[in-house]
Amino acid sequence: MAQINDHYRKLRAGYLFPEIGRRVRAFQEANPGAKLIRLGIGDVTLPLAPAVVEAMRRAVEEMGTAAGFRGYPPDQGEPFLVEAIRRFDYGARGVEVAADEIFVSDGSKQDSGNIQEIFAQDVRVAVTDPVYPVYVDTNVMAGRTGAPGEDGRFPGILYLAGTRENGFTPPPPAPGAADVAYLCSPNNPTGAVMTRARLAAWVEWAQASDAVLIFDAAYDAFIRDPALPRSIYEVPGARRCAIEMRSFSKRAGFTGVRCAYTVIPRELTGKAASGERVPLRELWARRQATKFNGVPYVVQRAAEAVFSADGRKQTGQQIEHYMENARVLRAGLGSAGFEVFGGEHAPYLWLATPGRIASWDFFDSLLTRCHVVGTPGAGFGAAGEGFLRLSAFNSRENVEEALGRIRHELGR
Amino acid sequence: MAQINDHYRKLRAGYLFPEIGRRVRAFQEANPGAKLIRLGIGDVTLPLAPAVVEAMRRAVEEMGTAAGFRGYPPDQGEPFLVEAIRRFDYGARGVEVAADEIFVSDGSKQDSGNIQEIFAQDVRVAVTDPVYPVYVDTNVMAGRTGAPGEDGRFPGILYLAGTRENGFTPPPPAPGAADVAYLCSPNNPTGAVMTRARLAAWVEWAQASDAVLIFDAAYDAFIRDPALPRSIYEVPGARRCAIEMRSFSKRAGFTGVRCAYTVIPRELTGKAASGERVPLRELWARRQATKFNGVPYVVQRAAEAVFSADGRKQTGQQIEHYMENARVLRAGLGSAGFEVFGGEHAPYLWLATPGRIASWDFFDSLLTRCHVVGTPGAGFGAAGEGFLRLSAFNSRENVEEALGRIRHELGR
Repeated sequence: MAQINDHYRKLRAGYLFPEIGRRVRAFQEANPGAKLIRLGIGDVTLPLAPAVVEAMRRAVEEMGTAAGFRGYPPDQGEPFLVEAIRRFDYGARGVEVAADEIFVSDGSKQDSGNIQEIFAQDVRVAVTDPVYPVYVDTNVMAGRTGAPGEDGRFPGILYLAGTRENGFTPPPPAPGAADVAYLCSPNNPTGAVMTRARLAAWVEWAQASDAVLIFDAAYDAFIRDPALPRSIYEVPGARRCAIEMRSFSKRAGFTGVRCAYTVIPRELTGKAASGERVPLRELWARRQATKFNGVPYVVQRAAEAVFSADGRKQTGQQIEHYMENARVLRAGLGSAGFEVFGGEHAPYLWLATPGRIASWDFFDSLLTRCHVVGTPGAGFGAAGEGFLRLSAFNSRENVEEALGRIRHELGR
Repeated sequence: MAQINDHYRKLRAGYLFPEIGRRVRAFQEANPGAKLIRLGIGDVTLPLAPAVVEAMRRAVEEMGTAAGFRGYPPDQGEPFLVEAIRRFDYGARGVEVAADEIFVSDGSKQDSGNIQEIFAQDVRVAVTDPVYPVYVDTNVMAGRTGAPGEDGRFPGILYLAGTRENGFTPPPPAPGAADVAYLCSPNNPTGAVMTRARLAAWVEWAQASDAVLIFDAAYDAFIRDPALPRSIYEVPGARRCAIEMRSFSKRAGFTGVRCAYTVIPRELTGKAASGERVPLRELWARRQATKFNGVPYVVQRAAEAVFSADGRKQTGQQIEHYMENARVLRAGLGSAGFEVFGGEHAPYLWLATPGRIASWDFFDSLLTRCHVVGTPGAGFGAAGEGFLRLSAFNSRENVEEALGRIRHELGR
């Protein structure tokens, strides 16, 4: 008799974005004339950079020739891409990462969802709250939690609340309070960014706790202040306790192209039941060799082109465009009386709901009164209640139109 | 303290293909002048079909324009591709599959590796032996087995031996002997194909056992006899007990492009701890929505082009090329005194080792004496001992050269 994985049923409420999709579709069907502006899901809007398009076009041509055809990609990524990552994402900031510590993949969602597989069933997981739902849901599906309580929190996970008081970058818990901690900076959903001191505190905590940090830097390209760390490996000691994930999705508009990577330093180990220390890099290599088959050649050439001189310039302009959107939204909403966080080193704004009303209610009123789609903070965890995420991924025109509607309908 | 997933350590011997890679590299370093011919890993060699290249080129151009740009792909696949699959892979053979029963993915390796996640920890898994290692290894990693015995078999998995006597398509075990069974036809590695009667026996068994069949049809395009079933859904009752997986990797040379799909009919359910029946389709939808982010737009356009009139013709010619290679190998090795199976409806030949020597020994002698790379049968399971897999994925010239060398060095 085929029994199912009952842990999935703890997730009954549905993944956040499908629920938003359902509400938006229902509104659209009832109001076919309404012109919706989507500042909800974090999907980019600008077309691919010309340097990327040109690289993909060349790669497609190659694949059509006997000499240029490529079959299965190398397990951990094409050497040309791995070298570009080493040089531009790490070497340029004084960080040394070896080629075999880099694992090219089809997305940070996948990597951050799959990484829990290499840990024991009973590791204690910590997340910041609000949180990207994938970190939590994949641990629920793996059976590391009980059924959720009324606040939606899962027993077995340690939630660290991001609040106004801690700048939405919670400090580490007591030493030994968790074995694996997920961090995301610049943060999805709050747009908060961790300072070097805050990151160093986490590294120190992980070392004291023999814990592993999973550092999701999918939004690192949006950091404006060169003094802020972009990689956790800029903090001494991080190679012994941190896994880092980066993505091309937001930095180069690759949400429909699919490329990311994960770094696991050789020094980083976990403990086997025997007491032996086992390099996590080897476990992940085995996981990927068994359950993954590499990133398309055409996509890896596209990612390589992001690092070319033209690619860096063109994708840099895209980032500027989104960050100017963020600035416009932040300034406009602020002057209309909203309390706004984030949006300075991240493409997300974290908006306190007016009068601290429930975030799904604010979502509904934005949708029905302004025809603007946001993402309710409560969808990211209990500590997200009373907030709403707005994304800067849109045209300037739409951002200004959305801002005008919000100011008119809901501003003070 | 971060404990690791100790189940990974049961796999210590390493995934089959990396081990082959290590032996081949060692040989090459010692014999830099040797011209190796690779008939080992099942990787295609012909360039992408012109219709596919053209579709990818157009899609790349679109992605570079404001009007044509696409961000996150739909969770289950682009409607244009899903419709083409419904029409050409199913409708054309009289099988009805609904759009929301199809899940487009980046590979059947991924799908067949991940599918076990939706089942309970204690389901009893059956595989045919020899077997594509991913089915077994992913269940080992999930903790469904003990440590392997001397024959490499994992306690907790039911192995059904494919032998000369059963034509390498083992019949089902006793009713109720397993909850989930992996089937692959045309088979990797043996090249055997299941007849309608054999498939029907499995469907009957699954229904009697309340079990689920995972039917991997990644090689269906190589079936030459139109009377043989290509889809398990051609067998009545299969919609209530079978998941089917198909891939573009071998049928259209997509090993470096990455596209596949999985079908889960709505009627197919598993049992929850509460006794309730739960549609497996919903669990997989949730799994994919949480841990996967869709297939690149450019790749989905490439897959769609496989179904165009030109695409079908051109990829059909590629299949003919590989199958003629298989015929040449089969005939030549047969007349040289080898006992050969498969290669008639599959791109793989299953070669009995001369004098029934160990398959890794035969692998080594093929490598060192003929400079030909095969895949040792023992790498696919205990029942693969005494056999070696040869793949037809190569140029005619290389196949004939390899055949000549084998006949000369090892023929009778």
